Amino acid sequence: MNKPDRILTDVASYRAERPLVRVNGRAYAWPKHPAVVICFDGCDPAYIDAASAAGAIPAIDRMRREGFAASALAAMPTFTNPNNVSIVCGVPPAVHGVSGNFYLDRDTGAEIMMVDATPVRAPTILAAFSQAGAKVAAVTAKDKLRRALGHGLDGIAFSAEKADEATDAENGISAIGALVGRGAPDQYSADLSLFVLDAGIRLLETRRPNLMYLSLSDYVQHKHAPDAPEATAFMRAVDERLGRMIALGACLGIVADHGMNDMAHPSGEPNVVYLGDLLDAAFGAGATRVICPITDPFVRHHGALGGFVRVHLQRTEPSSTAVLNFIRQIPGVCMAAPREEACLRFELPEDREGDIAVVARSGVALGGHARDHDISQLSGERLRSHGGLAEQVVPFILSHPLKAGRVESGAGKPLRNYDVFSVLLNDMKV
Amino acid sequence: MNKPDRILTDVASYRAERPLVRVNGRAYAWPKHPAVVICFDGCDPAYIDAASAAGAIPAIDRMRREGFAASALAAMPTFTNPNNVSIVCGVPPAVHGVSGNFYLDRDTGAEIMMVDATPVRAPTILAAFSQAGAKVAAVTAKDKLRRALGHGLDGIAFSAEKADEATDAENGISAIGALVGRGAPDQYSADLSLFVLDAGIRLLETRRPNLMYLSLSDYVQHKHAPDAPEATAFMRAVDERLGRMIALGACLGIVADHGMNDMAHPSGEPNVVYLGDLLDAAFGAGATRVICPITDPFVRHHGALGGFVRVHLQRTEPSSTAVLNFIRQIPGVCMAAPREEACLRFELPEDREGDIAVVARSGVALGGHARDHDISQLSGERLRSHGGLAEQVVPFILSHPLKAGRVESGAGKPLRNYDVFSVLLNDMKV
Repeated sequence: MNKPDRILTDVASYRAERPLVRVNGRAYAWPKHPAVVICFDGCDPAYIDAASAAGAIPAIDRMRREGFAASALAAMPTFTNPNNVSIVCGVPPAVHGVSGNFYLDRDTGAEIMMVDATPVRAPTILAAFSQAGAKVAAVTAKDKLRRALGHGLDGIAFSAEKADEATDAENGISAIGALVGRGAPDQYSADLSLFVLDAGIRLLETRRPNLMYLSLSDYVQHKHAPDAPEATAFMRAVDERLGRMIALGACLGIVADHGMNDMAHPSGEPNVVYLGDLLDAAFGAGATRVICPITDPFVRHHGALGGFVRVHLQRTEPSSTAVLNFIRQIPGVCMAAPREEACLRFELPEDREGDIAVVARSGVALGGHARDHDISQLSGERLRSHGGLAEQVVPFILSHPLKAGRVESGAGKPLRNYDVFSVLLNDMKV
Repeated sequence: MNKPDRILTDVASYRAERPLVRVNGRAYAWPKHPAVVICFDGCDPAYIDAASAAGAIPAIDRMRREGFAASALAAMPTFTNPNNVSIVCGVPPAVHGVSGNFYLDRDTGAEIMMVDATPVRAPTILAAFSQAGAKVAAVTAKDKLRRALGHGLDGIAFSAEKADEATDAENGISAIGALVGRGAPDQYSADLSLFVLDAGIRLLETRRPNLMYLSLSDYVQHKHAPDAPEATAFMRAVDERLGRMIALGACLGIVADHGMNDMAHPSGEPNVVYLGDLLDAAFGAGATRVICPITDPFVRHHGALGGFVRVHLQRTEPSSTAVLNFIRQIPGVCMAAPREEACLRFELPEDREGDIAVVARSGVALGGHARDHDISQLSGERLRSHGGLAEQVVPFILSHPLKAGRVESGAGKPLRNYDVFSVLLNDMKV
């Protein structure tokens, strides 16, 4: 008789051997096969639709046909950092604290980069699995995000941007150029994302991690509409790499951090509400301060313009109600909510929220003062950006089907992009 | 020695005696004291704030101080029936199917009243407790809602509107005029709500139900702003009755089905986007059909105008995208979402959703064709209504504090009004 206690043919017995990994109030089953979550930065569902119609994404089409495909909601605001952190923590910004690229410290008036200031407030799923003994790897496009996501991760974590500088001590790996076959790409290029995926493929081939997180860049989507040849070519290049990973035996879960919308007038002029200028004109300079939490040192393709800003009241007058009522009348604004409502509605941390959160209408960007936004960075291209409710719907695609009864519609909670680790590890039929 | 097995001093032993009641995937503990949920129809948080400032609501103020008070999100669209049904089912419209007062059957083109057509698709918490042996009572303002909520309820269920017609066979009670001390009130009166509360008090005094649901009318809030003397008087009258119930030993949970906003221009003219007229002008009469799901036979105070409508495409042209883009450009529109997005975002049932769901901006009402809305019903008063995101934040107030660690902020899901039975029965420290 063979050793029956070693025959792990079903999840129950497998789970009995490997306890669930618990993080931030959720439990995750140990992956039976290499489990890869891809944050497809800026992948509005329209890019999938257009590329599929063009026949450019056979691997994704097959995942959608034979695996699982749904729409999910990203975390608000629909920016990169809040969503990447939400995905790797499995919880919204209210729990982990990263609700934008930076925030205004209400006590000091200082603008503080959120992922620089302190470690993310919640542990990541990646860190928890690594500490439970799993082989874990995280590869991001930008190094800032790698530093945030890599916290507590006892494994491999590096960025495409700084691939050439990776060291065993800092990144758990070195000589990435030799591994991937080329050096670190230009951070303003489609190759920044493809390098992340190529690195993931090589890690699957050489290290076979139990769990891997690959986070791309939205450089292409900021520059090109879904039906542009450049977008199709990029989708095709991504798709080829996803197919390679599945062929290597990985289970894939793909989500986006946010969608992407055109925010320009028919003339090509950016369609921007400069809220700081409007508030100054209405209430006087210095009465309010507008924070654009999309702002980061890597803004060439959006001029720090997006669909969500925060307004801080700097004086006791005007009242919050007066400012709210003023903002709500501005064409181009979809919603203005006081802090408590914004935090309730969007699951945001109160200590990092403005007095008023403002969401743009679809197709409109919000800014502070016109003088502070360098739209010459757009080089004459149409403004495409994200941040509001209009960019909240994202794809949620798995390589394998779900177990019966999982992720049913109407279970009382909409599917979120940050559910992807849970669904991939707990609900997939493999 | 006394019989120790009968000494029920803590929840654990009490629960061991009475198993949890499970409904729609949630579990509810048996109430130790009469548990009363009040749906305070149209009670925008502004009514609480204004009445509190006026010193008119000492009982609610005490609940907020010594019990529990938070903001919660109502179900979308923020209408009465979807929210009342969500509250008594503990789940959103995607599960129970009631996503408005009526819907357009896409196959037949017929407009069907949702709560008349078929029983609600999900069982209610009230029915489940009654079938588990609890004494349950439900009193609503309007009889239509009583019929929907009373389904499967083996107990008392009647409306203020038809109180004089209640029979033991149909309502589990009769002679309500004698019980309450007066006959059925005018359905267009503040007393419609006060009658519901007075009936609740008398039921507590005479029948002491384990579980009771009291659903008021928003007649006053549609007519009067929070700082109007009529609103203050109404809040005071409601508050007195809430105090009586607490004095009778009840545990109270108060939520609203929706908030309420002024939707008139400064001149007093209603601020309405007649979407049907705009769509006809753009795409031709008959190309689209606008359904105002606030419409019901009881419309005198809002002219069937609210913050949410559904658009059904009647032909293959124009495309959904063309209509979406057109609607998104209309001033006064906050958001237009195709069916799949609307159902994901708002947890709505797909079979009863339009092709496009349209949400108004704060302060704006949406209608179909101007000719179909009789704003003379407003009798010269300012239009006040609800239905959109701007009316989604509602009070969530309990008479007693919560156990440590319950309903913490940022638990990964915003507090919803339809969580009130769960929090009242499971999380309150009594």
